[in-house]
Amino acid sequence: MSAEPALSLEPAGTARAPGGVRMRWWGWGDPEHPAALPAHALAYLRETVGLAPAPRPPVALEAVSLPASTLPAKALEQLREIVGREHARTDRYERVSHAAGRAYPDLVRLRAGAPEGAPDAVLYPASREQVQALLAACARLSIAVVPFGGGTSVVGGVEPLCGGHQAVAALDLGRMAELLDLDEASLTVTAQAGMRVRELERLLGERGLTLGHFPQSFEHVSLGGCAATRSAGQASTGYGRFERMVLGLKLSCPTGEIDLRALPASAAGPSPRELLVGSEGAFGTIDELSLRVRAAPGERLYEGVFFADFATGASALRELAQAHLAPAVARLSDERETAVSLALAGSGGLKGMLGRGYLRARGYAHGCLAILGFEGEPEELRARRERALAIVRRHRGLAVGRSPGRAWLRSRFAAPYLRDDLLTHGVMVETLETATAWSNVGALHRRVGEAIEQALRACGTPGIVMCHVSHLYETGASLYFTFFARQLEGEEIGQWRAVKSAASAAIVEGGGTITHHHAIGRDHAPWLEAEIGREGVRMLRAVKSELDPTGIMNPGKLLI
Amino acid sequence: MSAEPALSLEPAGTARAPGGVRMRWWGWGDPEHPAALPAHALAYLRETVGLAPAPRPPVALEAVSLPASTLPAKALEQLREIVGREHARTDRYERVSHAAGRAYPDLVRLRAGAPEGAPDAVLYPASREQVQALLAACARLSIAVVPFGGGTSVVGGVEPLCGGHQAVAALDLGRMAELLDLDEASLTVTAQAGMRVRELERLLGERGLTLGHFPQSFEHVSLGGCAATRSAGQASTGYGRFERMVLGLKLSCPTGEIDLRALPASAAGPSPRELLVGSEGAFGTIDELSLRVRAAPGERLYEGVFFADFATGASALRELAQAHLAPAVARLSDERETAVSLALAGSGGLKGMLGRGYLRARGYAHGCLAILGFEGEPEELRARRERALAIVRRHRGLAVGRSPGRAWLRSRFAAPYLRDDLLTHGVMVETLETATAWSNVGALHRRVGEAIEQALRACGTPGIVMCHVSHLYETGASLYFTFFARQLEGEEIGQWRAVKSAASAAIVEGGGTITHHHAIGRDHAPWLEAEIGREGVRMLRAVKSELDPTGIMNPGKLLI
Repeated sequence: MSAEPALSLEPAGTARAPGGVRMRWWGWGDPEHPAALPAHALAYLRETVGLAPAPRPPVALEAVSLPASTLPAKALEQLREIVGREHARTDRYERVSHAAGRAYPDLVRLRAGAPEGAPDAVLYPASREQVQALLAACARLSIAVVPFGGGTSVVGGVEPLCGGHQAVAALDLGRMAELLDLDEASLTVTAQAGMRVRELERLLGERGLTLGHFPQSFEHVSLGGCAATRSAGQASTGYGRFERMVLGLKLSCPTGEIDLRALPASAAGPSPRELLVGSEGAFGTIDELSLRVRAAPGERLYEGVFFADFATGASALRELAQAHLAPAVARLSDERETAVSLALAGSGGLKGMLGRGYLRARGYAHGCLAILGFEGEPEELRARRERALAIVRRHRGLAVGRSPGRAWLRSRFAAPYLRDDLLTHGVMVETLETATAWSNVGALHRRVGEAIEQALRACGTPGIVMCHVSHLYETGASLYFTFFARQLEGEEIGQWRAVKSAASAAIVEGGGTITHHHAIGRDHAPWLEAEIGREGVRMLRAVKSELDPTGIMNPGKLLI
Repeated sequence: MSAEPALSLEPAGTARAPGGVRMRWWGWGDPEHPAALPAHALAYLRETVGLAPAPRPPVALEAVSLPASTLPAKALEQLREIVGREHARTDRYERVSHAAGRAYPDLVRLRAGAPEGAPDAVLYPASREQVQALLAACARLSIAVVPFGGGTSVVGGVEPLCGGHQAVAALDLGRMAELLDLDEASLTVTAQAGMRVRELERLLGERGLTLGHFPQSFEHVSLGGCAATRSAGQASTGYGRFERMVLGLKLSCPTGEIDLRALPASAAGPSPRELLVGSEGAFGTIDELSLRVRAAPGERLYEGVFFADFATGASALRELAQAHLAPAVARLSDERETAVSLALAGSGGLKGMLGRGYLRARGYAHGCLAILGFEGEPEELRARRERALAIVRRHRGLAVGRSPGRAWLRSRFAAPYLRDDLLTHGVMVETLETATAWSNVGALHRRVGEAIEQALRACGTPGIVMCHVSHLYETGASLYFTFFARQLEGEEIGQWRAVKSAASAAIVEGGGTITHHHAIGRDHAPWLEAEIGREGVRMLRAVKSELDPTGIMNPGKLLI
């Protein structure tokens, strides 16, 4: 059975938004994308965690249960006066497409045709003036507003919650996607927040520049979404987290607007930029961003290295980061992730090259694969790489050539497609992440991994839990966990919640941040106080009250 | 006449605080420091801007007019119960020592024996518990609190303003100066906020580490002060601004406390760290900091380079920064600053080596001197330096050897001593700074320089205005202006205010930040709204109201 059974049911020719990017309403990415999970991977999962007896495709769009709109006709009319009739949509496709982000529970619900709700209208403003008029109208009319960029949140960041208001509207920035300015001397680009990161990267590429921001959601995520969630891309070790790129921004909020012009640095009091970056739509909508760009690298050299174990590999990465020799991309899989990657790799790929025989003979039978991605001008890249590999060798790292690097680059944005296929086969797959000090990386890795394993076992669905380090800092690193288990049919959400809670508790009790790059959204909101304290939450709440006194902005996210 | 006439009048043996650093009550630094201004420099200034007919030394401590304390005896008793009698001081020396920071108007007033006011008490808590008890008591008793670290603010950040309260106390963190933890694996140090940067640097040096933070105030400034003001050191191009070093912090405020543990990075909503860093005592007192440190460099190589003009030099620095080849210290003086430096240098120093003949012969008669300070491990340093100097040569930079670098290193913390001497001779000397995008550096340099010159002329005291670039970013750079003029006797403050206002207006209208590393304090507070907007200010005000509802924390600074 195909993994895209609902595809033909989408309204023919309905682009989700002028300038926006069409995405499967029930899952990830390009509706034309073929099934991505190879047969041998499916066989491996059948043996290890088990599959559903029969595939469980998503329901048809028509079968999705949609609540009746609670938006009074008069209110809709007022919103339409601002953006035009065709840009205030209430049709099924639009409402369902904006009914959820792309978290695991979102997909479980969407595929079952049972989203928790849907926006009563989807608004597509064309300008900052329209955004501000919409926010003012919504405040007046008691309509909650969910700013919507690429819709790729994995933490419930765009759930259409009313927060006690009479209705909820999605504010899709898809029509605000213009490049506004490129100051090449200052390596600064200014663009509207609805622009997709991929599109900006394409435009910059034409000028020999790069933003260097490649989250897994790269093909769909918007600039505004990255800023609102403190996104970190796969190359953040080299190019920095998204908040490091934000030099200036403009935000609209129900009480007005904030314009922070692009500045390289400032000592003018607390940073308002850092207060709006990460505000997740709860203070207002980010309309425009000025971002630091860089010269595109003349060469990209991605390669694989095996370490004897995770602790040794982590030590090597730590030394690289602290010597300022870390490559742009540096990822270290733990023993389990390495083993699963080898098992899932096609026979012609990594597996063939790195068969257990080869590794066993060299003492790396239970080793850990790292991907090191060097970027830069050829001569400088070679010099840096040589010095970096000297550190790797001191940690007995075994260079295994470029094939693993190329394989990783090829599939770097593919995981969400695989997730769709796994869900079709009744396999829960979820990721969660944290960051901590280097001295705590080993302990937190064990603690969170064990918490997830225990919670899965307690559900009666023992799983595979694996992890990688993928963002390096001088003082610490991120830990990114992925786990697979058989879905508890009919209890998918409860199963997920049990594991998520156990992992979150282990993270905050173990000294990690509740989120290194997925943001707070709805799913992490109960843990924010554990991270920043009661006064810290009150401080953010005070800002929200000032900018959004009636609480229409993205209720139920960030601050609950 | 000596420049330290009041020295013998200081109470013998009175250390300002247990653990604190003694400083001239009327000026800068070590009271034992000899006069710093050489005779030929004085002669140069006599010729150019003019000197007072006779030296104007500071008055004696006994002659300082102090307002009577408005602190009721009962209130003082309550404060003494918290910290102990000897740590709640009301004597003349303590009150005068905490009556002002070290801005130009502060020194004019102190030397004249006419500070604008003085704290009614100086409190020296020994612990976070005592800080919180003091803040709670002061809130109850309506006593304003001025957090006091090194007392080196040059923007009126520690002025003892009551803000409508019945009295004002300085809260000196001098007794809270312990090193609490050093996590070498994570390159993270945790210390109490009253610790002096110099002391921490010394302790780290014993372990082969460095903080890398060297503001001009290095010898006196506290960690808490650096965090509260977003300090940037002279080596910030290499080591980063202070806020980039802050991983975690603890703050006490009248309504409680905020503990932000050290994390390498987080996507958990708006950054509370970046809201407390730069809060300038207006939200609470920073009690404790976790800071990123680095391996101390194996070698430091500081050298001089001449560029044909400021624009060419700035282009070279821009290219260095954008190629990630900028040295730890990179400073470029404009034509005027270079000429004045040469004129003021002793005949055996820079002047001798770089006489006009030498430079003229090579076409750099009106050139600009840059100091490039490379730091790192010897081999890596050489490789980086070679690549950096290739860029310098492409901009026709003329290497003039290590002598200028050594001279700069020798005198890097000396300017405030010179200022004391200049004031004795009736010369106004003031600095102000900004930062802007690379594409705007030239225009802003001209605009602000002209504004200062015009304002000085309008006062009837034409001056010398000079500038350097000293902090490089990929997207822009700082501009640091220094100017000299004859003091308008009896109208010193009005003269200063006229110039300061003209420069500040030129900065914000010209697209710079009102302050790159001196903070807002009292002097820049009128310009904050121009920088972050009305809603931006309201946002910060809302946070203040939440943490400090009765407004006792450092009134009249940051948010006015």
